[in-house]
Amino acid sequence: MPAETFVPLGFRFGAVAAGIKHRDRLDLAMAEAPQGAAAAALFTTNRVKAAPLIIDVRNLRKSAAKMRAVLVNSGNANCATGKDGLRVCEQICSRAAKLLGCQDSELLPSSTGVIGMALPAERVVAALPQLTSSLAHSAAAINDFARAIMTTDTRPKIASAQFQSRPKKVTLVGIAKGAGMIHPNMATMLAYVFTDIRATPRQLREQLTNACRNSFNAISVDGDTSTNDTLTLFASGASGVKLTGSSEDAFQSALQKICQSLAEQIVRDGEGIQHVIRLSIERARNEREARHIANTIATSLLVKTAWAGADPNWGRILAAVGRSGINLSPARIDIWFGPQQVCRNGTAVGFKEKAAHQYMSLPVYEIRVSLGRGRAQASLLTNDLTSEYVRINADYRT
Amino acid sequence: MPAETFVPLGFRFGAVAAGIKHRDRLDLAMAEAPQGAAAAALFTTNRVKAAPLIIDVRNLRKSAAKMRAVLVNSGNANCATGKDGLRVCEQICSRAAKLLGCQDSELLPSSTGVIGMALPAERVVAALPQLTSSLAHSAAAINDFARAIMTTDTRPKIASAQFQSRPKKVTLVGIAKGAGMIHPNMATMLAYVFTDIRATPRQLREQLTNACRNSFNAISVDGDTSTNDTLTLFASGASGVKLTGSSEDAFQSALQKICQSLAEQIVRDGEGIQHVIRLSIERARNEREARHIANTIATSLLVKTAWAGADPNWGRILAAVGRSGINLSPARIDIWFGPQQVCRNGTAVGFKEKAAHQYMSLPVYEIRVSLGRGRAQASLLTNDLTSEYVRINADYRT
Repeated sequence: MPAETFVPLGFRFGAVAAGIKHRDRLDLAMAEAPQGAAAAALFTTNRVKAAPLIIDVRNLRKSAAKMRAVLVNSGNANCATGKDGLRVCEQICSRAAKLLGCQDSELLPSSTGVIGMALPAERVVAALPQLTSSLAHSAAAINDFARAIMTTDTRPKIASAQFQSRPKKVTLVGIAKGAGMIHPNMATMLAYVFTDIRATPRQLREQLTNACRNSFNAISVDGDTSTNDTLTLFASGASGVKLTGSSEDAFQSALQKICQSLAEQIVRDGEGIQHVIRLSIERARNEREARHIANTIATSLLVKTAWAGADPNWGRILAAVGRSGINLSPARIDIWFGPQQVCRNGTAVGFKEKAAHQYMSLPVYEIRVSLGRGRAQASLLTNDLTSEYVRINADYRT
Repeated sequence: MPAETFVPLGFRFGAVAAGIKHRDRLDLAMAEAPQGAAAAALFTTNRVKAAPLIIDVRNLRKSAAKMRAVLVNSGNANCATGKDGLRVCEQICSRAAKLLGCQDSELLPSSTGVIGMALPAERVVAALPQLTSSLAHSAAAINDFARAIMTTDTRPKIASAQFQSRPKKVTLVGIAKGAGMIHPNMATMLAYVFTDIRATPRQLREQLTNACRNSFNAISVDGDTSTNDTLTLFASGASGVKLTGSSEDAFQSALQKICQSLAEQIVRDGEGIQHVIRLSIERARNEREARHIANTIATSLLVKTAWAGADPNWGRILAAVGRSGINLSPARIDIWFGPQQVCRNGTAVGFKEKAAHQYMSLPVYEIRVSLGRGRAQASLLTNDLTSEYVRINADYRT
């Protein structure tokens, strides 16, 4: 949790322990806009979509993207649960809507956790009255929300920002979870941003898509895109500031700041990681090609394990570029580990191996790969692959 | 090493410790056909190709695929070594050709090991006289060859076969190395098959391509395609049996048996593995689609780590299918762990979790995924991802 969390006007937050995760751990969270909010949402590109995502798309359409609340459970993804999964999700929304005094379709449900197990609806339903009565407009309540949506995360992920639109000010706060199953596109996690600016759902969608590009769409932990990825933006309008002309740039900049901070917090909290690597692909023919090569490097087991050993084994990076499927010339490839060039024209250059090893022992560092093909570039925030990642994911259920 | 290794006529084998790997470990191997051999070879699809592969392609063309010897060093891949790497490789071939009394272009060099370091040519050259004078027509010499080409392999990989072509018989022997950087296409390893059948290079190429499809092209250890992959087939003709009509089926069948055995030995020796999984994708629209989905599952970190924990977490397999990029309907997907169905129509079916866990504790087992889209199928031999894999690859050099 950052030093100070700004709380946007027009929202209340809360969380309870519903008994989906281990006893007494927060696992059900709500954010409510008592006066309603305009909303935009982006969902996973995985063909397998969890039940709540199907309901979300339907609800957003039904309510013309004027929403009342986000309702998130952790501990169970409600995915691959068939018609029962949809029914259970509807039942929970319906009960929550009654308690809030709104339409079922004004709810935006989310789930995260294990796939293919029935979500214990009765526990969620039983916990809803306590949840709705605990909602509060406070940083502490936002922190509870952030804790309740955690799965293998080791810490809550919150980012907030404010900007002046004289004489008023606009506040944004974002809350995310994610530590594994993280890979573009898109977000491969849950993230909710709330703001008190006044905007249409269409404006919000444009703002969100822009902000996502270099944040949630530019991180990779393990190459696995989740079935439950959700990124939402709710705008209550309670600041009295409208999203137009003069405020647009400031808003996009604040939104990007929040999305980038949350994305970075996710990578830093990657399961079992020791190092965060900012991987830049430069001089590509186009951005798509640069992204594709960044993804190939960032998902290579041999590259990621070399990173775990702080091993300046640039040959593995070169080999990953070579198998990326792009018809490039290896003789034009240059590679740098931070300030040190380690490969020029596809061939070794004399470099200080010990210095490179020390550089790669830093918790956060940079690797640049130049393809010598054009002017496009792309960056990806990723991390190393450790024995600890394997331990966490081999022990997830059994 | 299998109980009995058949040695094809017309070949001699040998290996020495040249000092490229740790002192006194075999690291330089040769197989020679004193009367020459027709040859075919398949190389990596990686755009980054090691120096010996470039020389191989040139030599095969120059000598019209009539070759004299294979020369393999381990401990250094001679890759990303630029013009010096080519020069060193040429120099070694030239020296070996002098000792054997043949043209430089009749040599087929290979290297395996670390990328981006200069190959110590002087050590190789110094060891050549001892190597060529040690060549022998024996199973023991084949075993030495197999040991000399190992890197992280824990055991030599040999397969041999014989068939009658009355009144004569044909013998084949294959030797391979590989334990990491294993992924189609194609072989992602080194493999050399020697036979005493008489055949043209063109016939051999067709035979080799066929045999490769369901062997070396259907295995995945870690998704990384090496820069040095080489698969060769040498035919001395010394059996006196010609590859035509009646012998063709028997030869292809023997060759497939050898390639499949070597491929399986590679997966079983995968770095740090505990389980070998035969993954079958069924009822796909076409074989290409089936292979693509098999590859996506077999390279998912979440799937491979669940396998390490013998965790019947089929949701991760479903999620991997969903992110494969194929525009399929999850509601048609069925999944089996051996005899037990665990997912029907994209949804959980009641199954005995403990029995599934026990099944997945076997050293070798089967997983089937049916897409419900067509009649094509493909199988892939793969394995789990353990902490030990990470340890091996994080400690490779530093």
